Order: sequence, then C-alpha cells, then structure tokens
Amino acid sequence: MEPVNIGQALASFDALWSPRILTTVNDYDVRVAKVRGEHLWHSHADTDEFFLVVDGELDIALRDRTVHLGQGDTFVVPRGVEHKPSSERGAHILMFEPSGTSTVGDHHEEVPDHVDATTGHALRRP
Amino acid sequence: MEPVNIGQALASFDALWSPRILTTVNDYDVRVAKVRGEHLWHSHADTDEFFLVVDGELDIALRDRTVHLGQGDTFVVPRGVEHKPSSERGAHILMFEPSGTSTVGDHHEEVPDHVDATTGHALRRP
Repeated sequence: MEPVNIGQALASFDALWSPRILTTVNDYDVRVAKVRGEHLWHSHADTDEFFLVVDGELDIALRDRTVHLGQGDTFVVPRGVEHKPSSERGAHILMFEPSGTSTVGDHHEEVPDHVDATTGHALRRP
Repeated sequence: MEPVNIGQALASFDALWSPRILTTVNDYDVRVAKVRGEHLWHSHADTDEFFLVVDGELDIALRDRTVHLGQGDTFVVPRGVEHKPSSERGAHILMFEPSGTSTVGDHHEEVPDHVDATTGHALRRP
C-alpha cells in the first residue's frame, strides 16, 4: 500500500463525470472525479453518498432544493434521495461510497452521452 | 442534512489527537482531527483506516518503514497493521472509518495523557 496524492490522481486523467478509484477502505471506494456541466437525476437505493469538493463549485439538486458546495465543503446524499449533481464552472470532487456503487445509481433518467455509467475506473499510477 | 465545511469544522476546536465527526456515510464516520507530536502504536483488528492530509505533514510509522504524507496525500492502513501516526510540525487530517472505531484501536501501548482514546466527538456546529 502506497500513498496516493489527490492532485496527482486528478492530473492523471481528463474525462468528465468518470470517477477514478483512488483507494479502497474495507469494501468502500475513495473516488475522485472531474465534473463540469450536468450529471443526471438518479438515486442509490441502498447507500448514502459522500461528496467533498476539492476545488471548484458543485451544485447538488435535490427535488426540494439545491445544495451549493464550494472548496472544502462536504455533503452526504442519503440513500434513496434523488439528486442531480452539476457544475457550471467545473469542480474536482472526492467521493466515499461502497465499492460497486454505480455513478448513475439504481434509478435514473436516460443516461446522456457525456455521463459515464460506471462503478469507477482504476487509477493509472504515475 | 446540511453541508459541512472542513475548514470551518477544524476551526471549531483546538484539541489535538481528538477527532470530530464531520458526518456519517451509512455506518462509517468521516472525522477530522488536529494533530501534532506523537500518537501511539496501535492496530485495528477489523478495519482499514483512511487518512487524508488536509494541510501540514503527517508521518505514519509502520513496523518496517515510515510513510511520509504531505498536503493532499492519502493513505490506507490495512486492518491488523500496527501503526503510529506523528507530526513534528502539526497537521489537519481527515479520516474515514467505521463508526465506533477507537482512535487507539484494539491493541495498543499505554495511552499517554495527550492522546484522546475516543470513538470521535460530535462536531459543534457553528
């Protein structure tokens, strides 16, 4: 097990809405992603989802409000809660969630071409 | 559920080696701590432990080497592995581990006065 630097991990890929698995903790992933524009409405039936904004700004729309997150802000979307992340100007984010959790959840609208429906990609180590 | 800013959370307490629970994700805690000086040798029999250095520098001594972590570095101590965190100049760290995990693990040397043996304290929200 070696340390992984978040900045270096983020510098190793360009794809948007396509998380990389930084490391695993028991049966959870720590993932990082670059985001810009709109994700899609979805929910995770069986798990909460943790977001940390490493830099930039992230909005998480819920059905009754939108949560605005800036650098250093953290937020947990509870299981079963529909949400739609978006970022007008772009953001780098870190997520904790159980390994195998899909980026588009268990219930979601049609997946647009720019969104990667994935359980996370391996990080290419420098 | 409201957002929590890591910087504001860290500004809300001064105690060293005494983690605050930032939020929970399923049955896991996200904790933040201020550290300086030496923690103690310990291990967690049943869980990995994730560290992220928010700022400063953290050393994690293992029995066969010491891992040096700077800002943005992440490291996972695997379950059962003896480790001793320390920070000569101080650090702010974020941890991810199952709720109820003790800061001194299941096996540890004598707990010095400056180390808080705890499963994490509630964050006093501003």
